[in-house]
Amino acid sequence: MNNSKKDSGHTSQYAYEGLDRVIHERARLSVLTSLVTHSEGLRFGDLKQLCGLTDGNLSRHVQVLQEADLIDVRKGFENNRPQTICRITTEGHKRYVDYLAVLEQVVRDAAAAVKTRPVRGALRGATPPPRK
Amino acid sequence: MNNSKKDSGHTSQYAYEGLDRVIHERARLSVLTSLVTHSEGLRFGDLKQLCGLTDGNLSRHVQVLQEADLIDVRKGFENNRPQTICRITTEGHKRYVDYLAVLEQVVRDAAAAVKTRPVRGALRGATPPPRK
Repeated sequence: MNNSKKDSGHTSQYAYEGLDRVIHERARLSVLTSLVTHSEGLRFGDLKQLCGLTDGNLSRHVQVLQEADLIDVRKGFENNRPQTICRITTEGHKRYVDYLAVLEQVVRDAAAAVKTRPVRGALRGATPPPRK
Repeated sequence: MNNSKKDSGHTSQYAYEGLDRVIHERARLSVLTSLVTHSEGLRFGDLKQLCGLTDGNLSRHVQVLQEADLIDVRKGFENNRPQTICRITTEGHKRYVDYLAVLEQVVRDAAAAVKTRPVRGALRGATPPPRK
């Protein structure tokens, strides 16, 4: 992780380049987490409820995820009524797992800092680096 | 969590409304994580390296974070050269901790699903709900 980007003797330790922008967006993260926890698929209406999104918002994000091959959308019928079923694809599952590994790293980095540093430390004046 | 939004008997279990948009954006998450791990403050140049951002990109995100009162930016001198020091504010620390709690929830929800469901499960046809 620390050696992923080295220039001028510094590392981009907190760049988190693996935070895939397609997945990281909050609504899409909701959609994918819902679908990864329901690998048999979810009806559009149920997905909307689980994510707390409007029809329009969900449609827009579903389209982005479908175009990225992360989810699969099928239209069918249930009791003669049209139903739309969304499912995560194998590619979507793989990319979500990769994304999750980076998210876990963020949480580890952050949790370590938050637990070891007192809040008031953030209030002190910036300490200038030693002059040598 | 599950009772945060109840309508029509459904819950928005995966809405993650606490994923503060100001913090969640990838570059700003990098900046804040860098600053939370360096509560004494970081020079603009060091922050740029740690986050793997360009001058322009970092400037833009620093401005957004400053306007939201999440970080504090001070200009000073070091060896007669101008220096810009960025630090997380008390408000920024608090909101970052709140954000982190939601991020941890996402990781828990996702990790549980990823570990218990086989990848191939995502490939099967959507199971229609029982007709009753």
